[in-house]
Amino acid sequence: MSDFTPPVSDFRFLIHDVIGLETVAGLPAFSETSADLVDAILEEAAKFAASVLAPLNRTGDQEGAKLLANGKVQTASGWTDAYTQFCEGGWQGISAPESEGGMGLPILLGAAVAEMWQASNMAFALCPMLTAGAIEALIAHGSDAQRSLYLSRMISGEWTGTMNLTEPQAGSDLSKVRSIAVPKDDGSYAISGQKIFITYGDHEMTENIVHLVLARTPDAPAGIKGISLFIVPKFLVSETGEIGTRNDVHCVSLEHKLGIHASPTAVLSFGDNGGATGYLVGEEGKGLAYMFTMMNNARLAVGQQGVAISERAYQQALDYALTRKQGRDPKTGEDAPIIVHGDVQRMLMRMRSSTEAARALSLYAAAQLDLAHHLDDPTAKAAAQARADLLIPLVKAWSTDLGVDNASLGVQVHGGMGFIEETGAAQHLRDARIAPIYEGTNGIQALDFIGRKVLRDNAAALAALITDIRKTISETRNSGSESGNDVRDAATALEHAIKALELSTATIIERCGTDDRMMQVLATPYLRQAALCVSGWLMLRSMTAAAKADISSDFGARKIATCRFFFEQLLPEAAFMATQIENSRRAELHETQPLF
Amino acid sequence: MSDFTPPVSDFRFLIHDVIGLETVAGLPAFSETSADLVDAILEEAAKFAASVLAPLNRTGDQEGAKLLANGKVQTASGWTDAYTQFCEGGWQGISAPESEGGMGLPILLGAAVAEMWQASNMAFALCPMLTAGAIEALIAHGSDAQRSLYLSRMISGEWTGTMNLTEPQAGSDLSKVRSIAVPKDDGSYAISGQKIFITYGDHEMTENIVHLVLARTPDAPAGIKGISLFIVPKFLVSETGEIGTRNDVHCVSLEHKLGIHASPTAVLSFGDNGGATGYLVGEEGKGLAYMFTMMNNARLAVGQQGVAISERAYQQALDYALTRKQGRDPKTGEDAPIIVHGDVQRMLMRMRSSTEAARALSLYAAAQLDLAHHLDDPTAKAAAQARADLLIPLVKAWSTDLGVDNASLGVQVHGGMGFIEETGAAQHLRDARIAPIYEGTNGIQALDFIGRKVLRDNAAALAALITDIRKTISETRNSGSESGNDVRDAATALEHAIKALELSTATIIERCGTDDRMMQVLATPYLRQAALCVSGWLMLRSMTAAAKADISSDFGARKIATCRFFFEQLLPEAAFMATQIENSRRAELHETQPLF
Repeated sequence: MSDFTPPVSDFRFLIHDVIGLETVAGLPAFSETSADLVDAILEEAAKFAASVLAPLNRTGDQEGAKLLANGKVQTASGWTDAYTQFCEGGWQGISAPESEGGMGLPILLGAAVAEMWQASNMAFALCPMLTAGAIEALIAHGSDAQRSLYLSRMISGEWTGTMNLTEPQAGSDLSKVRSIAVPKDDGSYAISGQKIFITYGDHEMTENIVHLVLARTPDAPAGIKGISLFIVPKFLVSETGEIGTRNDVHCVSLEHKLGIHASPTAVLSFGDNGGATGYLVGEEGKGLAYMFTMMNNARLAVGQQGVAISERAYQQALDYALTRKQGRDPKTGEDAPIIVHGDVQRMLMRMRSSTEAARALSLYAAAQLDLAHHLDDPTAKAAAQARADLLIPLVKAWSTDLGVDNASLGVQVHGGMGFIEETGAAQHLRDARIAPIYEGTNGIQALDFIGRKVLRDNAAALAALITDIRKTISETRNSGSESGNDVRDAATALEHAIKALELSTATIIERCGTDDRMMQVLATPYLRQAALCVSGWLMLRSMTAAAKADISSDFGARKIATCRFFFEQLLPEAAFMATQIENSRRAELHETQPLF
Repeated sequence: MSDFTPPVSDFRFLIHDVIGLETVAGLPAFSETSADLVDAILEEAAKFAASVLAPLNRTGDQEGAKLLANGKVQTASGWTDAYTQFCEGGWQGISAPESEGGMGLPILLGAAVAEMWQASNMAFALCPMLTAGAIEALIAHGSDAQRSLYLSRMISGEWTGTMNLTEPQAGSDLSKVRSIAVPKDDGSYAISGQKIFITYGDHEMTENIVHLVLARTPDAPAGIKGISLFIVPKFLVSETGEIGTRNDVHCVSLEHKLGIHASPTAVLSFGDNGGATGYLVGEEGKGLAYMFTMMNNARLAVGQQGVAISERAYQQALDYALTRKQGRDPKTGEDAPIIVHGDVQRMLMRMRSSTEAARALSLYAAAQLDLAHHLDDPTAKAAAQARADLLIPLVKAWSTDLGVDNASLGVQVHGGMGFIEETGAAQHLRDARIAPIYEGTNGIQALDFIGRKVLRDNAAALAALITDIRKTISETRNSGSESGNDVRDAATALEHAIKALELSTATIIERCGTDDRMMQVLATPYLRQAALCVSGWLMLRSMTAAAKADISSDFGARKIATCRFFFEQLLPEAAFMATQIENSRRAELHETQPLF
């Protein structure tokens, strides 16, 4: 099992030299976020990720989480101690408002830090990731009393949070939720029903767990407008936060999963003994709408899991390739590590180049969320929100698909050893495989992108983004000899890709306007095409920044090579996607019979 | 866990209507191979695969093979009984010569049957697959005595066979083999050394196991010319085949693997007690050359594992998509199974279309092996051998990459349930992941293709194949209205792809002539491009055949839709590969520093 070294240089480069810290630090909310502070936090997080979380990744996979005979859920060895340290570092609240006890730092920085947690130990990092989702929901929709009672303890990490959406019959389609919430005289509700796939649905790392639960009130309408959101604490608490009696919610079983073994995925039963006490968040009937307000952050976080697992798999494969001797150096004829072989280099470059492109995309999207939250000017604020909304499904779907592909390549670089569990490469593939599924399958992301994000505003947000991309292309081309031929070649390649994206967009507007099924057929290749183009834009900006003299020469040279590989070997896939879109005809996938 | 239905209709269609049974049945060796016999054998194999092997697939995965405290290897429940039935059916010897006790049937038919074993239970099917490799080696190189003693019992399945090549320091590079064979006075050798990754290296299903072992004699030269091949039976046997004393070869441990849990992957130690008795096969120093004679069949078989797991994953995903209700039908607005969604249909069509294309390629390659073995005319024989040699790396690498991709898509179609082990979809991904690695990694296949199969004869064998492909394209275009617009569009798409393949080939000849590293850089995309083109040829022939009136209308309509999807959605990837090749510049991947 190789060590893990968080890619701090790349985070710094992207934040300072590509995205520009000043774009978010210039916001009044972040007036105290200096470059030094950012660097110090990145270093501190990297230290914690590498020294505390990473060493538990493999042992956690082997031990897994266990449901004991006494009904308690036992996390893997070292988990509780690591979690305690995580809370002591204040990491749970890094991007939460200072007014609620958080650090109040930009989401941009929080995202960089979160990638480190996910890369060092994805099964562990799921716990704070879910808590962060619950925090966001309560910040936006919780009452003052709910905020002071629950929120502060979640931001400190003292209590964790969960999201209880899925039921056996209600996966991608939450309108089918059946759990019931019956109002009681004291203003609380009696909740009953069964929820599945609840991440960290139970554990003993903290003395309480705050479940956020979707359920229907008895007279609620069918469908999504009948769904409300409830706080259901594992233990009831007094007004001052003292732990009281056990609530009527219990872990019935833990799933036996392909990966993330150390993350307890629970089946939770509510109300087996008369009803779990729940407290309504906001208004009745708005549960799903409230969930949607936190969706961007949650999908960004899952997308980052794809980036993170790619980085981890890359580092491990690179380490193996540098040390495993097999075959001879084609130049010298001598025994050599396998990294001398061009095909191994190609696999490693695919991994690195796509990882760095996806990282740039995720951090850029995170910065847009900061702008959307904190800009004063309403037009600029709306534009940032629209851009974040546009990009999030790309981050989620493209990065998590890459996570699987790159983890699989990592196995391949290891040869036979990659298939042996002790090596650890296979774990990354097993862990990575969930990310394209949860938090909205990648198919749903593609539908969200093509439907809500492109067709709904007649591609206006996309057009604004393309305008910015074209501006970068022109600037690069007009920059003269300063940036070199490679950068200008990259700009040309990107321009071709953007032209194709515009053509595909026109095709989609034409064909999908009134045809939902056609939209579904075209969604996936269209999302992939767009993700390649937008990350290509950020790779072009990276290339230009890396060519500047003040970047360390080793880092800069590697970054330029990585970008070049992206433009020459990966971006051309966008043309393939354009062909897929062009070739899709309505009839082709239209009829279930006799197709299947 | 869904049932498995072997795709007998597709085997029959490919054998009778696309490849043409008469091409191999016309060979004198197969004069008794009638269409009825072929169909009867396919039906019989399908019955055995579906009823005996398939139900053991999941339980075998859960139980795995175990090394007991007494040193014995215990296979999963039902394994021994299934193996006994397998032998009783005579299946081990299906393509072995009748003179040696086999059925003497074409490899084409044997390959179809083998795909069923692999699809129904890959972990089980590895045992006969390895025995078949050992059988082939002994047919080609064993002495009369060795053949009568060992071979007949292996062809009946009474004893199984293994291939002992890999050592910890000698994986892809077999020149590094260190196991030693010291000649003894009685003509036998004392073998010592350690072999790893030995598939079915030990088990109790048969009373003996025939290990074929690569080792060096004491005064052998370094490198591949010093390696010899030995028979090392688990139990020594008398001249009449009675089991004698235990030989000095022992299973030290079984690997803990990502997948194929029920296939015991052994570390075998030879000579811990003075030396395992081994018998030289053929001449000293020719061990590796002998191994190469069986490589085509072995690589074909592994390639078929990719096709097989794709088929199995497809059937399971289709079954789920037809029954899982989630969301609404875009047309009617009513609750509907997820198969109504265009994105789900796209995933299923990707799986089915690529699976059927890869199956066509593997069976066509198998038929070329029959021709190469049995044609009388030396020119035609050599041409068939050259074509088989050309195609085998495509079958192995492309199909096994597809196996991983398709098993991963199968998981995705299942959504959250795909990540739960009980569903069984994840097992296919875990099992599929080994096939791109063993029997020569896919990177090695690509090097074999570009170096030995294309550059070495200056692309002559490829040019002959392209001539045949162009002939089909012309015939299709000149066939008039008979075949319809879809078929003519497909022919046009294929022609574009073939032109690009020719251009890429010219680029490769120009750039790689004296540059081994450049060859390594271009090998993988070039193999993929070629595989898409050749399987596209077979899909075009399939489309034409399916359009004929005598194909059942349901099967024919589905086949045409599958082929259309291939030409519109999958074949265009070949242009992306061409771009990757065109864009590869020597410098890019040349230097290890500062690239990594």
